[in-house]
Amino acid sequence: MPSVKSYAAQSDSSPLAPWTITRRDPKPHDVQIEILYCGVCHSDLHFAKNEWGMTVFPVVPGHEIVGKVTAVGSHVKKFKVGDVAGVGCLVDSCKECDNCKDGLEQYCSDGPVFSYNGQERDGSGITYGGYSKSILCHEDFVLHIDDKQPLDGVAPLLCAGITTYSPLRHWKVGKGQKVGILGLGGLGHMGVKLAVAMGAEVTMLSHSPSKEADAKRLGAHRFVLTSDEEQVKAVTGYFDFILDTVSAEHEYSFYLNLLRTNGVMVCVGIPPSPAQVPAFNLIFGRKSLAGSLIGGLGETQEMLDFCAAHNIVSDVEVIAMKDINKAYERMLAGDVKYRFVIDMATL
Amino acid sequence: MPSVKSYAAQSDSSPLAPWTITRRDPKPHDVQIEILYCGVCHSDLHFAKNEWGMTVFPVVPGHEIVGKVTAVGSHVKKFKVGDVAGVGCLVDSCKECDNCKDGLEQYCSDGPVFSYNGQERDGSGITYGGYSKSILCHEDFVLHIDDKQPLDGVAPLLCAGITTYSPLRHWKVGKGQKVGILGLGGLGHMGVKLAVAMGAEVTMLSHSPSKEADAKRLGAHRFVLTSDEEQVKAVTGYFDFILDTVSAEHEYSFYLNLLRTNGVMVCVGIPPSPAQVPAFNLIFGRKSLAGSLIGGLGETQEMLDFCAAHNIVSDVEVIAMKDINKAYERMLAGDVKYRFVIDMATL
Repeated sequence: MPSVKSYAAQSDSSPLAPWTITRRDPKPHDVQIEILYCGVCHSDLHFAKNEWGMTVFPVVPGHEIVGKVTAVGSHVKKFKVGDVAGVGCLVDSCKECDNCKDGLEQYCSDGPVFSYNGQERDGSGITYGGYSKSILCHEDFVLHIDDKQPLDGVAPLLCAGITTYSPLRHWKVGKGQKVGILGLGGLGHMGVKLAVAMGAEVTMLSHSPSKEADAKRLGAHRFVLTSDEEQVKAVTGYFDFILDTVSAEHEYSFYLNLLRTNGVMVCVGIPPSPAQVPAFNLIFGRKSLAGSLIGGLGETQEMLDFCAAHNIVSDVEVIAMKDINKAYERMLAGDVKYRFVIDMATL
Repeated sequence: MPSVKSYAAQSDSSPLAPWTITRRDPKPHDVQIEILYCGVCHSDLHFAKNEWGMTVFPVVPGHEIVGKVTAVGSHVKKFKVGDVAGVGCLVDSCKECDNCKDGLEQYCSDGPVFSYNGQERDGSGITYGGYSKSILCHEDFVLHIDDKQPLDGVAPLLCAGITTYSPLRHWKVGKGQKVGILGLGGLGHMGVKLAVAMGAEVTMLSHSPSKEADAKRLGAHRFVLTSDEEQVKAVTGYFDFILDTVSAEHEYSFYLNLLRTNGVMVCVGIPPSPAQVPAFNLIFGRKSLAGSLIGGLGETQEMLDFCAAHNIVSDVEVIAMKDINKAYERMLAGDVKYRFVIDMATL
């Protein structure tokens, strides 16, 4: 079995450091990818620090993976050596449950296999992610990437992109609709770009005045400073849809009040404590609070194609592998516009 | 201006007692109704005791009103003297906002005028509800009632009926869907009857084993005792839709776990404290927690016609007006199957 250079956290208190993993020998349907870029998602940090209490150490994070196909199994039909390809948050699922059959592998009833810290379905162990030189998985979980796009900016689409694209599509956001994006970070900045490209009128909701210029540069039509009463009043009962990308504690009812009748607010961030939702805020106006998790494989390909057609990539800061621990610190401080991406050539 | 016998609470600590109100002289579009039956809704008690802090005393509750038309204004086209008619929770709205134009008068942007404790739009004062001998309002807010149905059982349809019908219709509940009804009271028993008539597979969710026989008599296909782990396990990830009629504190995340992917839980009851909703419970399975408030006038008529076509009325216990305070006590104790209705001939 091939040895592969990687970066891993050996415990919740140890920094990420070089480590060698073994990947399986390619199976007939496997695609082997030399990783060129891997995005740095906030979940990577949650897992490295075991903040969700489910990390199996050592953990090799990374699920925003773009690279070049270096080998394909004998039965592979969708990819050939030399193709640019991507792997996102999922590397396997049962393929038999209703959700899998509906293209919602992320909600696989048997539990999808996540790209890292996941249990391989054949019992062969734990999955290792994209902070490594190469990865391989079943062709059904590999995405086609348009090689005319800057590949460092494409990498974050595999998680930040699909996480925001999927709810916008599922709730049919488009022309004539007023959309609020809550939080301008890795997810929020993708939400702005995607919702604008879908034709919606997009408002950035933020408590930080310093975000206004950047929100507008990203395409937002409007900026509302949520600490300014007058500005908030002007958008009370205004939005058809709010995409809530915030993982810090925040007051859900405040934002539900900004929805119009039949409005929907969708959370993609997971704050440490439960949301407090007064039933009044849902009942008056028939409002919905919903959640959404990444997207299925078909929808992820659709998102990548949509982004290629609309020239959308993530705003990234490319780093060397050795700087990952510093990048985590800066990410915690919100000091990145808007996604770190590791240049895997530096490993 | 005509004097009308009624029952009112003079303060939050005084029982309901006889009182005389004056109703306005009929306007050209007004329909005047002699009230035959008035249902007793839990909101009546909330307002009489000022539990929501917004009661203007004296208050004459009652918004499940059925009676006979005794006079019509010169411009009235939809009703004639002798018709059986109903008035529900609304007696007016702005008629000009988007919600009113969409037939969602209950969400009128200017605030709909509720049948009691509401502010008349012409500034003439507070509205008085159905615990009285007669009522009058604009014909657009009066409903046609099929006089072949038992009118005491029809009265609660005007609030309990439409409150449960509207979300079932809005979220397109029907054949092939698995629906859970949470709580077997005034709202819940209507939810069972309506969801069954719409063709759904209906499960009563209750922590009280004594409710099983009645739930099945009402048409529920299945009963799940929510304190029984095995029974709960069997319906985890099972329901397309849960109608939550409970106004007491309860654990929302427990019920969200019973929803399948894309499942929706709709609250129509308002517990005293906010719901605690962990984002995880919404995100894993793309679930929605929503609310719904009564229904618009068009939909209320549709519901009454649906009930007439399917022989659906509320299960009621008819009481005399003088027994209303005792009825409130019994309602608080859950001792009614499933709605008190006042025979207004007893006033």
